Amino acid sequence: MNLSISKNALYNALNTVSHAVSPNSPQPVLRGIKITADETGLTLIGSDADISIMKKIKADEENKMNIVDTGSLLIESRYLTEIVRKLDSEIIQIEIVDGALTKFSGSSAVFKINGMKPEDYPNIDFRTIGNPISMDKNALVSIIEGTAFAAATKDTRPVLTGVNFKLENNILSCTATDSFRLAKKTMKFDLDDSFNITIPAKTMFEIKNSMLNDTVEKIEIYQNGKKVQFVSDDMIIQSRLLDGEYPETDRLIPKEFPYVLTIDREELIRAIDRTIFIKNENMAINRLQCSADEIVITNRSQEIGESHENLYGEYTGEPIDISFSANYVISAAKYIGGRTIKICFSGQMKPFVILNTEDDSILQLVLPVRTYN
Amino acid sequence: MNLSISKNALYNALNTVSHAVSPNSPQPVLRGIKITADETGLTLIGSDADISIMKKIKADEENKMNIVDTGSLLIESRYLTEIVRKLDSEIIQIEIVDGALTKFSGSSAVFKINGMKPEDYPNIDFRTIGNPISMDKNALVSIIEGTAFAAATKDTRPVLTGVNFKLENNILSCTATDSFRLAKKTMKFDLDDSFNITIPAKTMFEIKNSMLNDTVEKIEIYQNGKKVQFVSDDMIIQSRLLDGEYPETDRLIPKEFPYVLTIDREELIRAIDRTIFIKNENMAINRLQCSADEIVITNRSQEIGESHENLYGEYTGEPIDISFSANYVISAAKYIGGRTIKICFSGQMKPFVILNTEDDSILQLVLPVRTYN
Repeated sequence: MNLSISKNALYNALNTVSHAVSPNSPQPVLRGIKITADETGLTLIGSDADISIMKKIKADEENKMNIVDTGSLLIESRYLTEIVRKLDSEIIQIEIVDGALTKFSGSSAVFKINGMKPEDYPNIDFRTIGNPISMDKNALVSIIEGTAFAAATKDTRPVLTGVNFKLENNILSCTATDSFRLAKKTMKFDLDDSFNITIPAKTMFEIKNSMLNDTVEKIEIYQNGKKVQFVSDDMIIQSRLLDGEYPETDRLIPKEFPYVLTIDREELIRAIDRTIFIKNENMAINRLQCSADEIVITNRSQEIGESHENLYGEYTGEPIDISFSANYVISAAKYIGGRTIKICFSGQMKPFVILNTEDDSILQLVLPVRTYN
Repeated sequence: MNLSISKNALYNALNTVSHAVSPNSPQPVLRGIKITADETGLTLIGSDADISIMKKIKADEENKMNIVDTGSLLIESRYLTEIVRKLDSEIIQIEIVDGALTKFSGSSAVFKINGMKPEDYPNIDFRTIGNPISMDKNALVSIIEGTAFAAATKDTRPVLTGVNFKLENNILSCTATDSFRLAKKTMKFDLDDSFNITIPAKTMFEIKNSMLNDTVEKIEIYQNGKKVQFVSDDMIIQSRLLDGEYPETDRLIPKEFPYVLTIDREELIRAIDRTIFIKNENMAINRLQCSADEIVITNRSQEIGESHENLYGEYTGEPIDISFSANYVISAAKYIGGRTIKICFSGQMKPFVILNTEDDSILQLVLPVRTYN
């Protein structure tokens, strides 16, 4: 292997692929990024047990690539990214000098790094599987941002640590829940297909991060019930799926809302955020009391004290008095977007739903908390 | 106590004073900030065992202060700053409603917080002591930035965890050393006085942080061998001093430099920074070889690999081959400032000195490391 390449092109690709690498993996080869050079360009691969990313850099003028000798290398991800980030030239020269010893040259700085044997890297199958659905990168990012935060972080019920993607009747529903709150985003697809898969939330965040820096616009999603692939022009991200049947969450979402509060989204977030330092057993709980006359949000702890704030909003229905986790409602309001939101109640101790008044593709649900104030 | 005040004025003062507060102090009253209102304005006090800060907010138009009733309160620093930071109005109303229960009102948000008894707060003596020396805030900040980083962090020899201030023959010398490196900044004073005190480095950093946000320009420094006070128009920061005699460091600093390397400061930092991932036993050691022909910096580890870089600079003297801690030289070069620096050697295993070619008031010294390459 002997080649030269634009430092920026290589650094961006390393940065993308490194999202799949666990720097402290018990398997040393998985701490590395494998780079293979052939006539068409470079292929970078990074992987841990859950997620694998393959990224291609084309041998073209823009990437200032010049391949003298093909070949491959496998070097710890953190050393690779550190060297390429800091090298003192716009074009980097990479050459295997002896076995796995690889030389990186900038303008005056030279590194010789001990690599691992690329043959020892697991053979990861990136061939695409089945028929894809296609969506904009931005749509995928908004699905991830709008749902993945609501997945469970404890794996007492492993399937809840993922985001469920269900395609049925031309609608893709993406759902995450930790059983105290639920986030759901839907999207129409003119496609005669159906599936029901659950992708680890951790993977979804990595996918988002690795795509944010990328110039890709369209993503194709392939799945076969065992793994899922997010494929763009020059990149494949694939992840294992979570086993187990995802709970039927639709029945949890109330359909009728006799009581509705319409309120400025950012004002609600600010009002709740003001009170989150008032905690009981390390949890901030707000009490919301709505009537035709006033909307009052309070928080109280024996130790710290209490807060009281009148909110401006429009409330219809019988008076309601409900308590909830401040952090859950802040997250729900943050990710639902829009200027004005509707908080829809169906009863004192029933889950309530937060809706964006301008976008009915997204829904947030929060379970109230029982308090004894 | 019943008053109203500009939110910004109060928030800035709380922010300044909170630098002296340990939020988890075993003494609950010391987790608090004490605020006293009299006819002239508000006085805020925060303190831990080492450092105390008193800040005054004048009862004037600019601070939009209106004192209806004088009095005092004592409330946990983190709650106070959180409430004031997030309250929903430009003017805040503060009123003691019952014992230590204090009401904070913004526009529509109201907090009632359980305070502590202000009588329980220690009586801290802020009266100034002795004759002061006076300096610009910026000069004090540059002393702190140029020296305090070099103080010891382990207290095997407690006096080395401080910055030594020595006034003698009209020169103030400020020195910090952890016995592997030393930083020294000097300043002329037309003043017939002398002292030799050592201020905890931790305190110096807090002083810097609390002053950075402040509009103060001049600082007067008082000391009596037991404590030191940094006094400005509306603020007093005082700190205990470290016991023990500060070592006579001047004899450590070589006076003759037969070998001198003149080099661009930022280029040197970048060259070393490129190599700090190459570590032996968690420490990055650079080897610098200078001769009339070339200046070469290298780094090598059995495990990771090696680096090699030719530097552009001017070297005079016999060839030298010296090794040092990458992080120590980066810090020294970072804080000495200037475009070009001189690295002055007096022998292979002798301490070397880094000087700013445009500013002879600051000096950095680093001990070489013995290696067996």
